[in-house]
Amino acid sequence: MKPDLFEAPDYYNLDELLTEEHKMIRDAARSWVKRDVSPIIEQAAQDAKFPESIIPGLASIGAFGPYIPEEYGGAGLDQISYGLIMQEIERGDSGVRSTASVQSSLVMYPIWKYGSEEHRKKFLPKLASGEFMGSFGLTEPDHGSNPGGMTTNFKDAGDGENIILNGAKLWISNSPFCDVAVVWAKNEEGRIHGVIVERGMEGFSTPETHNKWSLRASATGELIFQDVKVPKSNILPGRSGLGAPLSCLDSARFGIAWGAIGAAMDCYDTALRYAKERIQFGKPIAAFQLQQKKLAEMITEITKAQLLAWRLGVLREEGKATSAQISMAKRNNVEMAVKIAREARQILGGMGITGEYSIMRHMMNLESVITYEGTHDIHLLITGLDITGENAFK
Amino acid sequence: MKPDLFEAPDYYNLDELLTEEHKMIRDAARSWVKRDVSPIIEQAAQDAKFPESIIPGLASIGAFGPYIPEEYGGAGLDQISYGLIMQEIERGDSGVRSTASVQSSLVMYPIWKYGSEEHRKKFLPKLASGEFMGSFGLTEPDHGSNPGGMTTNFKDAGDGENIILNGAKLWISNSPFCDVAVVWAKNEEGRIHGVIVERGMEGFSTPETHNKWSLRASATGELIFQDVKVPKSNILPGRSGLGAPLSCLDSARFGIAWGAIGAAMDCYDTALRYAKERIQFGKPIAAFQLQQKKLAEMITEITKAQLLAWRLGVLREEGKATSAQISMAKRNNVEMAVKIAREARQILGGMGITGEYSIMRHMMNLESVITYEGTHDIHLLITGLDITGENAFK
Amino acid sequence: MKPDLFEAPDYYNLDELLTEEHKMIRDAARSWVKRDVSPIIEQAAQDAKFPESIIPGLASIGAFGPYIPEEYGGAGLDQISYGLIMQEIERGDSGVRSTASVQSSLVMYPIWKYGSEEHRKKFLPKLASGEFMGSFGLTEPDHGSNPGGMTTNFKDAGDGENIILNGAKLWISNSPFCDVAVVWAKNEEGRIHGVIVERGMEGFSTPETHNKWSLRASATGELIFQDVKVPKSNILPGRSGLGAPLSCLDSARFGIAWGAIGAAMDCYDTALRYAKERIQFGKPIAAFQLQQKKLAEMITEITKAQLLAWRLGVLREEGKATSAQISMAKRNNVEMAVKIAREARQILGGMGITGEYSIMRHMMNLESVITYEGTHDIHLLITGLDITGENAFK
Amino acid sequence: MKPDLFEAPDYYNLDELLTEEHKMIRDAARSWVKRDVSPIIEQAAQDAKFPESIIPGLASIGAFGPYIPEEYGGAGLDQISYGLIMQEIERGDSGVRSTASVQSSLVMYPIWKYGSEEHRKKFLPKLASGEFMGSFGLTEPDHGSNPGGMTTNFKDAGDGENIILNGAKLWISNSPFCDVAVVWAKNEEGRIHGVIVERGMEGFSTPETHNKWSLRASATGELIFQDVKVPKSNILPGRSGLGAPLSCLDSARFGIAWGAIGAAMDCYDTALRYAKERIQFGKPIAAFQLQQKKLAEMITEITKAQLLAWRLGVLREEGKATSAQISMAKRNNVEMAVKIAREARQILGGMGITGEYSIMRHMMNLESVITYEGTHDIHLLITGLDITGENAFK
Repeated sequence: MKPDLFEAPDYYNLDELLTEEHKMIRDAARSWVKRDVSPIIEQAAQDAKFPESIIPGLASIGAFGPYIPEEYGGAGLDQISYGLIMQEIERGDSGVRSTASVQSSLVMYPIWKYGSEEHRKKFLPKLASGEFMGSFGLTEPDHGSNPGGMTTNFKDAGDGENIILNGAKLWISNSPFCDVAVVWAKNEEGRIHGVIVERGMEGFSTPETHNKWSLRASATGELIFQDVKVPKSNILPGRSGLGAPLSCLDSARFGIAWGAIGAAMDCYDTALRYAKERIQFGKPIAAFQLQQKKLAEMITEITKAQLLAWRLGVLREEGKATSAQISMAKRNNVEMAVKIAREARQILGGMGITGEYSIMRHMMNLESVITYEGTHDIHLLITGLDITGENAFK
Repeated sequence: MKPDLFEAPDYYNLDELLTEEHKMIRDAARSWVKRDVSPIIEQAAQDAKFPESIIPGLASIGAFGPYIPEEYGGAGLDQISYGLIMQEIERGDSGVRSTASVQSSLVMYPIWKYGSEEHRKKFLPKLASGEFMGSFGLTEPDHGSNPGGMTTNFKDAGDGENIILNGAKLWISNSPFCDVAVVWAKNEEGRIHGVIVERGMEGFSTPETHNKWSLRASATGELIFQDVKVPKSNILPGRSGLGAPLSCLDSARFGIAWGAIGAAMDCYDTALRYAKERIQFGKPIAAFQLQQKKLAEMITEITKAQLLAWRLGVLREEGKATSAQISMAKRNNVEMAVKIAREARQILGGMGITGEYSIMRHMMNLESVITYEGTHDIHLLITGLDITGENAFK
Repeated sequence: MKPDLFEAPDYYNLDELLTEEHKMIRDAARSWVKRDVSPIIEQAAQDAKFPESIIPGLASIGAFGPYIPEEYGGAGLDQISYGLIMQEIERGDSGVRSTASVQSSLVMYPIWKYGSEEHRKKFLPKLASGEFMGSFGLTEPDHGSNPGGMTTNFKDAGDGENIILNGAKLWISNSPFCDVAVVWAKNEEGRIHGVIVERGMEGFSTPETHNKWSLRASATGELIFQDVKVPKSNILPGRSGLGAPLSCLDSARFGIAWGAIGAAMDCYDTALRYAKERIQFGKPIAAFQLQQKKLAEMITEITKAQLLAWRLGVLREEGKATSAQISMAKRNNVEMAVKIAREARQILGGMGITGEYSIMRHMMNLESVITYEGTHDIHLLITGLDITGENAFK
Repeated sequence: MKPDLFEAPDYYNLDELLTEEHKMIRDAARSWVKRDVSPIIEQAAQDAKFPESIIPGLASIGAFGPYIPEEYGGAGLDQISYGLIMQEIERGDSGVRSTASVQSSLVMYPIWKYGSEEHRKKFLPKLASGEFMGSFGLTEPDHGSNPGGMTTNFKDAGDGENIILNGAKLWISNSPFCDVAVVWAKNEEGRIHGVIVERGMEGFSTPETHNKWSLRASATGELIFQDVKVPKSNILPGRSGLGAPLSCLDSARFGIAWGAIGAAMDCYDTALRYAKERIQFGKPIAAFQLQQKKLAEMITEITKAQLLAWRLGVLREEGKATSAQISMAKRNNVEMAVKIAREARQILGGMGITGEYSIMRHMMNLESVITYEGTHDIHLLITGLDITGENAFK
């Protein structure tokens, strides 16, 4: 018996599809979340403050670059391990998982894939250990769902060594405390490149976004570039064009598809437990048909989401998962989690609106998760395009 | 042109069903909310603090006892006026509307209906002006949906003049700052009576409930009675039994059915405006089918909810509305508002999670509204009982 | 007590909004449906055969031209009466209601509104009595949702008296037995005109559409025009352009919004009765929460649909109902009926798939009703356009 | 290229989870359905007539006892093969799949599992070849969802050799033409036993149920026993109690979970093809967001259902699938298919109600499938009981 673990539903014995290593990694993440995140996260959300004290723990469970090779400080794990770590973190809080997702898939991933060997050596180990925190600058105020329309740009500084970066990015997780930012901007020909911007560069500021009602335990902000001089050597050499940041989103969305299961599991587990203990009209409310309907449909949806994530993990590990397949899982699993959080909250009645239980915090967090890295509708249209061959974005 | 008013959808020309007085009362409430509530309410919610400064304003628009006769300080209005005032306040915030609902329907109403003439004269004018704030003690920790199971009780103090009250009530709006509480408790024969408890009575305390994620701009707390000595004359003489507090709930639920329309209107109005202004892929997102689907279904649902509320108002004014009819409108209209808030939030994308727009605050607030004064499922079973003749509560 | 009437839900006492005449007309229609339609309609549907024997009855209850002035043989009733008659007929069968809708709103209405006095005198009395049956030719195979794209056309015959009509219309109710058809076709300038085509004109044929799984008790077919010589005097002089047939659709859709309530009522009434009688696990299934959820939500939706139809009736009677308002009611009420039919069918378990009960027939019929006279999505986009000002059809 | 196959969606490359043999078996079934079932099935449904001519074909693809050992004439296949065969048949028609399900899981399975070696040798080969057709008598008129309440019973005939069987069974697939029936009845102690009743036994009749609107291409009827003398040797010796017939239902429900995917695939495939070809407003309707929403959500749901069925197949093959796990897949997958059929029908507009396309027939068929072998609500309560430990049936 492992008294320090959450109950995690596994209605279709999916653990049998995992290796021993997978389970070890998952259980380690789960224990850490239970011990170091759960006790403090509600207050962090109430205070709207990212709990920086958990950064070393995140590093220790491999949450920063799970699949980055060990030579660069990463955990060197497979995609399913990455997914499982995200799942466990999001049982705790979607904001904490977001911090890890950004660090791993939006900062370390492009540096690993598209950076020079020098970039890799300079940045990846520090990002893996949490010594450096990173952010990812793609979204702009007027181009949320259409990143190709970005206006952030750079031109040659004329000094042979630098570029001059101008523009602004919005809705950037980790921005307020990031040490480095992987920023996507257009060169003078309008071609998109990734640029590593470092804190301290003149003209680079990261104002925090306040009064969020979602992901309050993570920090969100802007990235503002006013004639920032950046060394040309900070441009990622490996790939240009919109495909580069989109490939990062693929990796992040894959993690979200797993993470959302964690949030859903925690809501389900909490609601089930509550329903079994809460007595009304002389019996546990879990004995009433209307509550069983909610709970039975939750576990059904979780089971399907788990299968989707598992299958996608196998495909991705084999290098075969398409962006459209990832979109389907991101869209499905986050919506699943949102719906479960809402139903779970109702099961708790009045208790469901307090910070004594995690459900409403999950519910609020998931409103960001269903929107970021491709809104619910954008993923729909990605699938639609994939199956019909017709572009309906415009 | 009235530049200070919100846009309010009226797709089926329902204003034609209102009198000039109705519209005047509504517009006055609307203007006040726009001027005095909207600018401050978001910060109050962020700070989780009831803005006491608005109490006089609430009194001025007739929100404290709209239908209480003028001789007792009330506004002496009809039921539709009452509904319209609640609608307008909830455009601002469900928490503020809750404060008004409690004061009107759960404190002033029972004193008016079941109190002695002395009670009426002593308490109603002060409650109407907001000099006194009241709370309503029915719900107990173990008896949320089944108030008849309450254990709060009183016995004769043996001094010929007093009773001794013991017990605890939970989820009590206005409790932390209430001057008086109408408390429902069982006498020694187990019969439920209403008792007016006044702040300052020994053994009476009102600890606040913290860390709510809903109705943060209103104050919620407990009512705790430890051997509180209350004059026998504070017992409401007019009616005993569970029917008495339930009749108060009828009045409050009627107000909620209207109030929820206000929250929904504000979400719809905000989302529509945003969708018309927000450009993506070269056109306003309001021009995309997926967004039109959300918006068109919102206005359809709002229109039906308005008709339901209007018809119920006529019936109630005629003294013919049954509890079951009220349950239907409360259940339908609050769920309508919850769904609209959720969809509206998605239309705003990332902006939807910030305090810059009211939508997510409404969404969070409505989680309480769908739960209190009879949960969504309890109202379902009330309708179910009414139409089938079969009791499925147990 | 009126033993020959169905039970009709009226949860919000809406009968009080009707006049005595309204109720008389409704009850007459109801009695006739109960007596003359219900006993034979199931077999007609099984046999996929329109029961022509009911034509005189339809005429007798005013179903052919309820609002056409008495001088032309119509019933001279108001719009709410028209709605109530449609409601009662559709309690029996949507196919029978369709027959009446077409006759009234798509044949008699345009002749009355846009025909010459001669047309009115020649056709309306016979159509009102059922001596003549009519059909309406607008939809074409390749232009279902976009009637303006029609290719049916006419040109001058060159004989000074006639036009030559060519083209084909599809999904035409009443076509196989119609005596006259109001056909919409483009003249040589591409302007749409209404033309009265009469059975027997050479080159005019009306092949029946077979193997329908919906509206099997009504006849559907094509209208085919191969060089049909039609007197110029058969052109409706009063209005040309797409607005003319669209105004007919407004009238028909208004009737459908009411009719759908009838189908829903019959499903609800049947399911409620069954649930109260059907014993499982020792009690009526109406006593189970899962069944109460279905039933309670049905009556809620019916009540709202009734209010919507009533309000629309008042507006239409006052000449103020817009096409967009009618679209909302058509879309809402038909979807409401479809959903209720589906849920009601489930309540009946295995019995729900047989012809012993009307529910599955209603469910199948409503699949046509949700599609014709503007599909569910087209009405959505009409509302969307109305509220956003953005055209999202294309 | 295999021109004779349907298009079958496989969005998550699930074919990789199948063996070559699985795919061969599936493709054989698919080809046969395409060639021998699709061309005739619509007319059979219109005529409400089971097409007996397809019986040999069903036998040839292994549809009668796919997992029954070859020594008894079965196909000796694994559970996933069984599932795939059911899936392919139901692409054609749920009624045909029902015929096969009953024969395999409700007649051959209990004879194989609980019959004597003599029973097996006498009946199984003939059932496998289709020479004999079987039916399964469990459901009674007053005990649909509660089979334990059955009243069909037998007593000792007193002649040392026979029992006397009395009672009636309802909703029995294949009944009108069955050669044998496996009937569940109570002995004098009230213990349930399986009894093989053979056509020709005196007092045994099988009247057909007419006027069904669902599964019209399969035959349904009653089994009536009036003092039927049955040899004692026809009692299944291997197991008594309600668990015996329930284990048969497990096997049948497993097949339904797969079969429903087939119906859904056919609806999706048809709707997608139609949407790509149907031009409105100048482009294929597949290019409109509202249609993409329908299609994208269909393929998402199909993919999850496939994963659920696959995982359940593995578990069942390993002998580890619980009844509750099977209930989840039956409930989920049939509801998935019902919803997809309904949405697909809407995509086809008017064409969707005709027999020219298979969709509405599927939609009607699935109304039976969602009800039989455990209604949608019963499976919900099975899951509810499993996860909460609370029985909410009563």
